[in-house]
Amino acid sequence: MKKAKNTRETILQEALDMASHLGLESITIGQLALRLKMSKSGLFAHFQSKENLQLAILSHAASDFKYYVLLPALATEAGIPRIKKLVNNWIGWGERLTGGCIFVNASIEYSERKGKIHDFVLFLQEEWIDSLVKIAESAIRTGDFEKDIDTKQFAYELYSMLLGFHYYHRMLKDKDIRIRQEKALDRLIRNYQVTKEQVSPKSP
Amino acid sequence: MKKAKNTRETILQEALDMASHLGLESITIGQLALRLKMSKSGLFAHFQSKENLQLAILSHAASDFKYYVLLPALATEAGIPRIKKLVNNWIGWGERLTGGCIFVNASIEYSERKGKIHDFVLFLQEEWIDSLVKIAESAIRTGDFEKDIDTKQFAYELYSMLLGFHYYHRMLKDKDIRIRQEKALDRLIRNYQVTKEQVSPKSP
Repeated sequence: MKKAKNTRETILQEALDMASHLGLESITIGQLALRLKMSKSGLFAHFQSKENLQLAILSHAASDFKYYVLLPALATEAGIPRIKKLVNNWIGWGERLTGGCIFVNASIEYSERKGKIHDFVLFLQEEWIDSLVKIAESAIRTGDFEKDIDTKQFAYELYSMLLGFHYYHRMLKDKDIRIRQEKALDRLIRNYQVTKEQVSPKSP
Repeated sequence: MKKAKNTRETILQEALDMASHLGLESITIGQLALRLKMSKSGLFAHFQSKENLQLAILSHAASDFKYYVLLPALATEAGIPRIKKLVNNWIGWGERLTGGCIFVNASIEYSERKGKIHDFVLFLQEEWIDSLVKIAESAIRTGDFEKDIDTKQFAYELYSMLLGFHYYHRMLKDKDIRIRQEKALDRLIRNYQVTKEQVSPKSP
């Protein structure tokens, strides 16, 4: 049983990497078999169809993402340190794949396609946005962020910054983008942060 | 000659729309012929190869983008009004295509693919980023933005906001995203704007 699980994970990690740069729609069981030096029929036995393979890749990516990005962030001090940790983990996770974050790529690829893949990508992305909202809420609880901020607005602005990073890094190959992204994050946090003047009550 | 030009433009506008939602890599001369109710050989005579068709689509999109997005913004008062006009035009242009902005989609699709399409997308995207930098420079000249701002940083933050809009609008189908995007733009502008306090010289 262990061997079977490991084989499946090896296949899915390779398939995930392939999908990250070719696109989830472009990978085939045949191409993957070539890359893994496995028989096409052996691989077909694992997944039965291209769609099952695509869903398995996304599912594998989602649990990998949870393990490398979300859980270590949740294990970090809540508030601004947790936000910074989450951003760093997100960037680090994308770096582990030849084509960068599969969810960004799949969101573009499937936004106008209907079906199971689209629905699964959407589900995972809504979960991700929700965790950004929750992380902003935890920063309110620690007193890092002002109480009346719009946490969904924060989530939009934070994810926009990451999408911009993905674009500058992957398409433009901009060498300064990590520095720019950090500047943008600091500015974003400042916009939501409790300022020292506001800690002491203002005159009426 | 006029007819020929119009036929070509009709073909390319249809092809551009198709590419915006299927992806530039997925369209074929055969599928396009079906959609246009033209003969495949007739269409082939126009473009000779799939790659030529893809390049022609991008070229058509680039001149359409210039006409609808850039030029009307340049004809608007420089500074903050021009920035807002550019953003509105960008969003309006994406709305005219079933799958939204072709350049965002193609940047994701071609970031790890080598060849003429990649190079052309990159060229067009560098031109676009450059025009965002120039528009920030013009806001410095009008006195709207502070003199010492990092205009490349502004371009990154502005385009990130638009990429976030594209994602929320296309993938998440978020109905509030236009309001969120406008809030984010106002905040972004405020971060670079000359504040009233700073207009009068500070004490040394």
